[in-house]
Amino acid sequence: MAKIVDVHSHVYTPSYIALLRTRKEVPFIRTFADIGDRLIILPGEDESPSRGRPVGPSYWDINEKLAFMDSHSISTSVISLANPWLDFLAPAEATEQARLINGELDQLCSQHAGRLYAFAVLPLSATASAIEAEIQHISSLKHMRGVIMGTTGLGSGLDDPLLDIVYAALEKHELPIFLHPHYGLPSAVYGPRADKYGHVLSLALGFPLETTIAVTRMYLSGVFDRSKTLQVLLAHSGGTLPFLAGRIESCLEHDGYLLKEGKLNEEKRALWDVLRKNIYLDAVIYSEVGLQAAVAASGAERIMFGTDHPFFPPLRGEEEWLSARLNRDAIKNAFGSDNTTANNVLGDNAIRILKLHT
Amino acid sequence: MAKIVDVHSHVYTPSYIALLRTRKEVPFIRTFADIGDRLIILPGEDESPSRGRPVGPSYWDINEKLAFMDSHSISTSVISLANPWLDFLAPAEATEQARLINGELDQLCSQHAGRLYAFAVLPLSATASAIEAEIQHISSLKHMRGVIMGTTGLGSGLDDPLLDIVYAALEKHELPIFLHPHYGLPSAVYGPRADKYGHVLSLALGFPLETTIAVTRMYLSGVFDRSKTLQVLLAHSGGTLPFLAGRIESCLEHDGYLLKEGKLNEEKRALWDVLRKNIYLDAVIYSEVGLQAAVAASGAERIMFGTDHPFFPPLRGEEEWLSARLNRDAIKNAFGSDNTTANNVLGDNAIRILKLHT
Repeated sequence: MAKIVDVHSHVYTPSYIALLRTRKEVPFIRTFADIGDRLIILPGEDESPSRGRPVGPSYWDINEKLAFMDSHSISTSVISLANPWLDFLAPAEATEQARLINGELDQLCSQHAGRLYAFAVLPLSATASAIEAEIQHISSLKHMRGVIMGTTGLGSGLDDPLLDIVYAALEKHELPIFLHPHYGLPSAVYGPRADKYGHVLSLALGFPLETTIAVTRMYLSGVFDRSKTLQVLLAHSGGTLPFLAGRIESCLEHDGYLLKEGKLNEEKRALWDVLRKNIYLDAVIYSEVGLQAAVAASGAERIMFGTDHPFFPPLRGEEEWLSARLNRDAIKNAFGSDNTTANNVLGDNAIRILKLHT
Repeated sequence: MAKIVDVHSHVYTPSYIALLRTRKEVPFIRTFADIGDRLIILPGEDESPSRGRPVGPSYWDINEKLAFMDSHSISTSVISLANPWLDFLAPAEATEQARLINGELDQLCSQHAGRLYAFAVLPLSATASAIEAEIQHISSLKHMRGVIMGTTGLGSGLDDPLLDIVYAALEKHELPIFLHPHYGLPSAVYGPRADKYGHVLSLALGFPLETTIAVTRMYLSGVFDRSKTLQVLLAHSGGTLPFLAGRIESCLEHDGYLLKEGKLNEEKRALWDVLRKNIYLDAVIYSEVGLQAAVAASGAERIMFGTDHPFFPPLRGEEEWLSARLNRDAIKNAFGSDNTTANNVLGDNAIRILKLHT
């Protein structure tokens, strides 16, 4: 029986939940008289028809995580703090909270050795040197296998040259980045009827595009030319990167302005090369159509199963989560009778890449 | 030898170019002392480092189109007015220009019978009944094989219920929509260093996402439930729709708000069903990774070759256009020795679907 590893599994640690409960502005937990506690993570969500998202013990109780893993035959989960991480905190508080939360995460993993590993959180509102110090500390923690990062970086995106010191530190300690969206796109792009469609447009389209823009900016700015061994695990199978990589390369090769400015240099690594050497993709894509594109772009040895738990719970209380099943079925359908590759994507790749002892 | 048909091929007709030259605001043609004529189609482009895009005879001279077709072994092109079409005109002028331009297009096709067909343009700023009248007229023109449409519809998107009368008219006359992006995304989403990357982020990511949002809004609003036979050819292989279709469906099926509101009804057609019965995809995707996802989503019998000529010309004056070659190579690489399917995608699908006499 293959081991199943979930590399896309979020927790809000108890201290983080407590922090959200003390706040009165985004992000925060707001209690409504009719629908109870809701997590409000984007401006205006508490006034929208959907009123944020329900928040309950599955968000913070590790026993719920373990029960979910049991009922879905998941051997090991690599847990990560969910968005918006520490993006909203002032530097000193972010630095303090990162140390605290990374300690909590490592302790949770210790208490469930072999079943839990974690991606650490960084105090990105602090200085690059404070971040570097936290990376040094993270590398000393037993169960950390990388860091989760949103798309804002130090405030102006992941193509910020000031991040080079952070990328270099991550390379040095062989810690991959788990790159994850949070902010989506400005709501105006969804038009005047978006509220009628619940969260669908922002979650299904805004999230993946946020990731795609972020990693494309990294690529265009030369991050992967300077940090040749940097490893980035992209959430949701890369957003849309596998599908659009050809178009990105073509637009680059046809840009007259960049040619004139001498910026189309032959030494720039091809995006396809970056996809096969620096990018890992989770398999959170809910269809074999997308999964096969992810495999074709980065190679089956770089794809790792995930669930996005505790998000997308079943709406009618079913024990088996449809969201998890869709991602498992996509693997089954994509590889057919090739059980070795299916097993690699389900768990063996993660065990090898993230050096897990399961 | 297979016939090659290009379904994604733009022209700016002489009257449209004349119109752009008279204008002093977007969209317009501006003459710079140092770099000559530039087409400025988005606000601020003339002040950006790239200063719009070079515009020359390949945009309006049909002989350049025919020469391109000859040198790339393209038997037949289905030409369409390029963005931003008539979106910017007041209703009466849009109505007048649509009639004029559709006449010009049909005449061009007559002069090059068998080599040229066209998608007509609609006066979308006019009333639905004026649009309906133009559709009626278009159906009487010999060489029209559908209509090109941007993503704004009557001004508030393609999920506007007022468009139902337009969709019904297109269904009645069996005219497919060629859905094409123009506006991209607000430039703020590309961050503070976007100008350094030329047009890459807006063209490579903004355009495809604009298309994806537009068609997803159509789907969510029930257009394909009401207009069950409406046919829509999506530019750039659907933007990102094939890759994200699984996520769109999953987000829909997990939306607690939509469930509570009774909007998750069992009768809604699955997006996968729409992809296989209502959506055609061009093959303008520049890689076999994307093309294979397009094929997996809609079926190889619904994919049609295109070039996006006259955009993405070779930067160093090569006779063979890299942009066209990448799209041909993608087909060759995707289907390997399956020449029948490759030939279908290169031309036979378009001949069958658009009823071309080549």
